[in-house]
Amino acid sequence: MAARLSSAQDYESLVDQYDTWMFDCDGVLWQGSNPVDGAMDVLQILRHRGKRVIFVTNNASQSRKSYKKKFDKLGLEVHVDEIYGSAYASAVYISTVMKLPKDKKVFVIGMSGIEEELTEEGVSYIGGTDPADNTLEPFSLSNFTLDTSVGAVLCGLDTSINYTKLSKAYQYLTRNPVCEFLATNTDSTYPAAGGTLIGAGSISAPLAFAVGKEPLCIGKPAKTMLDCIQAKVHFDPKKTIMVGDRLNTDILFGQQGGLATLLVLTGITKEIEITGPSPSPIVPDYVTASIGDLRAVGKQ
Amino acid sequence: MAARLSSAQDYESLVDQYDTWMFDCDGVLWQGSNPVDGAMDVLQILRHRGKRVIFVTNNASQSRKSYKKKFDKLGLEVHVDEIYGSAYASAVYISTVMKLPKDKKVFVIGMSGIEEELTEEGVSYIGGTDPADNTLEPFSLSNFTLDTSVGAVLCGLDTSINYTKLSKAYQYLTRNPVCEFLATNTDSTYPAAGGTLIGAGSISAPLAFAVGKEPLCIGKPAKTMLDCIQAKVHFDPKKTIMVGDRLNTDILFGQQGGLATLLVLTGITKEIEITGPSPSPIVPDYVTASIGDLRAVGKQ
Repeated sequence: MAARLSSAQDYESLVDQYDTWMFDCDGVLWQGSNPVDGAMDVLQILRHRGKRVIFVTNNASQSRKSYKKKFDKLGLEVHVDEIYGSAYASAVYISTVMKLPKDKKVFVIGMSGIEEELTEEGVSYIGGTDPADNTLEPFSLSNFTLDTSVGAVLCGLDTSINYTKLSKAYQYLTRNPVCEFLATNTDSTYPAAGGTLIGAGSISAPLAFAVGKEPLCIGKPAKTMLDCIQAKVHFDPKKTIMVGDRLNTDILFGQQGGLATLLVLTGITKEIEITGPSPSPIVPDYVTASIGDLRAVGKQ
Repeated sequence: MAARLSSAQDYESLVDQYDTWMFDCDGVLWQGSNPVDGAMDVLQILRHRGKRVIFVTNNASQSRKSYKKKFDKLGLEVHVDEIYGSAYASAVYISTVMKLPKDKKVFVIGMSGIEEELTEEGVSYIGGTDPADNTLEPFSLSNFTLDTSVGAVLCGLDTSINYTKLSKAYQYLTRNPVCEFLATNTDSTYPAAGGTLIGAGSISAPLAFAVGKEPLCIGKPAKTMLDCIQAKVHFDPKKTIMVGDRLNTDILFGQQGGLATLLVLTGITKEIEITGPSPSPIVPDYVTASIGDLRAVGKQ
């Protein structure tokens, strides 16, 4: 059973135990554009205490550079290399694990964050924010030419999702037998200001259903994301804690990587899912209402 | 094992055996706007022989009236009441089985075919082809007001699918605990001119994934569709044959209704799926390459 933290002593003991703090962002540090009360203070306290802070987000709509700007606005100085996003991890996977040849391309269902990270990794792409694919005009196969250099379809959150994008991706996945099917992440929803919205997993769901095959998921809980971090940062898993709002991504990710886990209730997971009559089989080590609770710890 | 028909005698014997012929349309009678070679001749031969002909389509993008126009263009006179579409069956289900109160509405993800059939059945709706929902502009919860009169989300093929439609449907399904989740049909793909395109099942897939619940499917293979036909037409299942191109909709539909089944290979199902090393568990009674093969039967 998860330990429910509430006293200053609980938080003090938690902070003492872990040297590296990995944070999910949406639903933990902020909800849409609204910061979670006290979140920035807590990050500053951890920094002040000499803790290493890493941000691990499945949100692929923004690149790490754009994410940094979000922190800047909220008044917290972070470095781009402290941020690990599923768009970045996908680009790294395509270039270094899949080793997509330089003359091949990725067909993107997704937003500028994916495009920016692919460009940084030197991976060519089509689709994405291309105006020709961002249309509600009827899609016709007679006007479509299969680009035989497309070696992968990469699908992430895309708030301009439409029939043309889905149809083209479907053609690539079914007419080129070696075309890989990748997803930045498969979160079904994500916490936004004022409620919950459709997530990246729901954007790749039509393709998975039509093709009859699940995509290879890069973001949490997949190990690919942790591999990406481990390639850049040396940390002791036993002294590391993953903080997240979602059991089947954040908490599972931490557990599979041998990290401690702290669930916060400011995002997707509701308390009833861990304490109710049919609790999730994924049990975090610790639970607290909000990351802001850690303000109970002094800066000293 | 399915009987493979090839000789004039095979076809003659088949036509003799069955009095009522139910036809799927896309992939059987036509592919997109191209008629299957000989299909119209065969329908005329069957009519000439005194057979009852019924058209049973999962295609919800058009109403029965629009479907009739398609037959008109191809030179075959059909009556609207010989056509049973999943949009029509959905409208009948909502008004007569679900008995949606007159002051309640349906939120539609779909095209004009669904709207026309709902209107014919006196069911109010929002969404669908409303220009406000046919947009790629960003969707924001702060600009969205939940219409508390929405009692069902009905999802069909929608080639203008977009994030606003999906997000609104998701809000209705998750914020109103008694809102029903219906799908006209759950075909993952459909046969179009020049290839295969994403079908209605792939349009409802994001919602099913995000909500964590499958929709109630109205079209084939569901019994709702047969109930709709039986309410209007008296036929002897033992003297009735269902002709289709898809095992998990058409053929299953026929089998579950106690009808004989004939698979044609001009649509989704490929021969390898029934004769290959890992054949489908759904085995039609008969198989022929194309409905046009029945021209071997004379008019007499």
